[in-house]
Amino acid sequence: MRGMGTEPVESRRILRLRGGVAREEDDQVVVEEPLEIRVEGEALAVLMRTPGHDLDLAAGFAITEGVVASFAAIGTLRHCRGRGGEDEHPENAVEIGLVPGTPFDRERLRRNFVASAACGLCGRAALDELGARARVNGERFQVPASLLATLPDRLIESQAVFHRTGALHGAALFDVAGAALVVREDVGRHNAVDKAIGRAAIDGLDVTRSILAVSGRTSFEILQKAAVASIPVVCAVSGPTTLAIDTARTFGITLVNFVRAGGMNVASCPERVSGA
Amino acid sequence: MRGMGTEPVESRRILRLRGGVAREEDDQVVVEEPLEIRVEGEALAVLMRTPGHDLDLAAGFAITEGVVASFAAIGTLRHCRGRGGEDEHPENAVEIGLVPGTPFDRERLRRNFVASAACGLCGRAALDELGARARVNGERFQVPASLLATLPDRLIESQAVFHRTGALHGAALFDVAGAALVVREDVGRHNAVDKAIGRAAIDGLDVTRSILAVSGRTSFEILQKAAVASIPVVCAVSGPTTLAIDTARTFGITLVNFVRAGGMNVASCPERVSGA
Repeated sequence: MRGMGTEPVESRRILRLRGGVAREEDDQVVVEEPLEIRVEGEALAVLMRTPGHDLDLAAGFAITEGVVASFAAIGTLRHCRGRGGEDEHPENAVEIGLVPGTPFDRERLRRNFVASAACGLCGRAALDELGARARVNGERFQVPASLLATLPDRLIESQAVFHRTGALHGAALFDVAGAALVVREDVGRHNAVDKAIGRAAIDGLDVTRSILAVSGRTSFEILQKAAVASIPVVCAVSGPTTLAIDTARTFGITLVNFVRAGGMNVASCPERVSGA
Repeated sequence: MRGMGTEPVESRRILRLRGGVAREEDDQVVVEEPLEIRVEGEALAVLMRTPGHDLDLAAGFAITEGVVASFAAIGTLRHCRGRGGEDEHPENAVEIGLVPGTPFDRERLRRNFVASAACGLCGRAALDELGARARVNGERFQVPASLLATLPDRLIESQAVFHRTGALHGAALFDVAGAALVVREDVGRHNAVDKAIGRAAIDGLDVTRSILAVSGRTSFEILQKAAVASIPVVCAVSGPTTLAIDTARTFGITLVNFVRAGGMNVASCPERVSGA
């Protein structure tokens, strides 16, 4: 009983050691299963993900990895039977149907997925490649630092499954007043971001004045996804990489790291952070 | 000045907010750059990684992702010029040369990388696929719980770059007496594990009685890499996924999670943990 709406947790018998005492217990463990992404009837990629919100994940993946130029190119989005045939779990494949007439270069995409992250061989080349797909974000508005400081805690509070398993990454989109637009969880950091971005696209939300809060580190791929989705602010409790900072600066994204009660570091576009 | 032996950290100017006061400062940031893995003269994959210990990473990736059946099939391992030609950073590509006569099915590997993690569509199929490459680990020995409890702190203490940037994952191999065999860091969890496993292979270390300690979560891919490398014990501060537990049980790996001063959870093969 998995898939959209059900809870992606199963029980496993484990041995719990506490103060020298061992006890067998049932533990709540986050589920991890492959999801096949199919486009126009053929498999394009398999992601290891936490079941649930699979259509959000497929839509977000298609948008942020350049499978489609925008969500408008997606005509249909549904669970389907994948390569595994009868034996397979019926919810482990999603079929994306394109709006008739949409150009689709399967071979180019395959080459990109082999390259995994970038078609170039230095950070500069990765940014150049991204430039063809991402929009520079020129939205002018301000977010109070005091509001940003609350987002990591609010993200963790919203992560229903994290509390029971301690094993899930979270991603949330907040508006500039601090209201949560969407919160998603996954065993993979990138998947959580794709689920949040995909759900916002499915619901037709305007994310061009939103804040993406993520658990964990901000690496190139997180900023790449924000750039392609036109999200202007990214914040996290952990640190950034050089390429994450360079990507944020290139595409006009405000990047805020080490967000804690006592303060934070703004690595890019600090003009959007007020009350500092 | 990057690559083996140099420190993978660069300076970036950031705005630091503390108690309502903003100050511009130079911050130490972990470097992230693509590394192209080439086999017999052709590009096979591009990984986003932290520069440094690139040969360890290439060797570990080749072993744990099934590019070669074992380290013995690798004849040469060196930095090279990749597709980028003259413009490219000379240390962002590694060439793997195979021992003459080694079978190598480039197309099969390409298909696997498109699939990214598993060629099947459920956890069971992922385990079946892994079964062709992984060895069941039947090594019998015991590790005191009190020793396991110290490993996450010792991993963090060994992470030189983490302390300055707050942004790096770590992986270390310890022997059963608790001596550190190898410690590696990377922006990617999987890369840190591949670097540790690759270095152990290059140095000819016997890891069949070792303990792999990782920062972050233990998902399928971490256990998959341990299974292929014949590492019998994996421990982490964070939680496991269902598929990580199932993989550990299938291949006889002791999986220990939520390792803290007060205790830990053993999800698989607890017979190797003593003094509980």
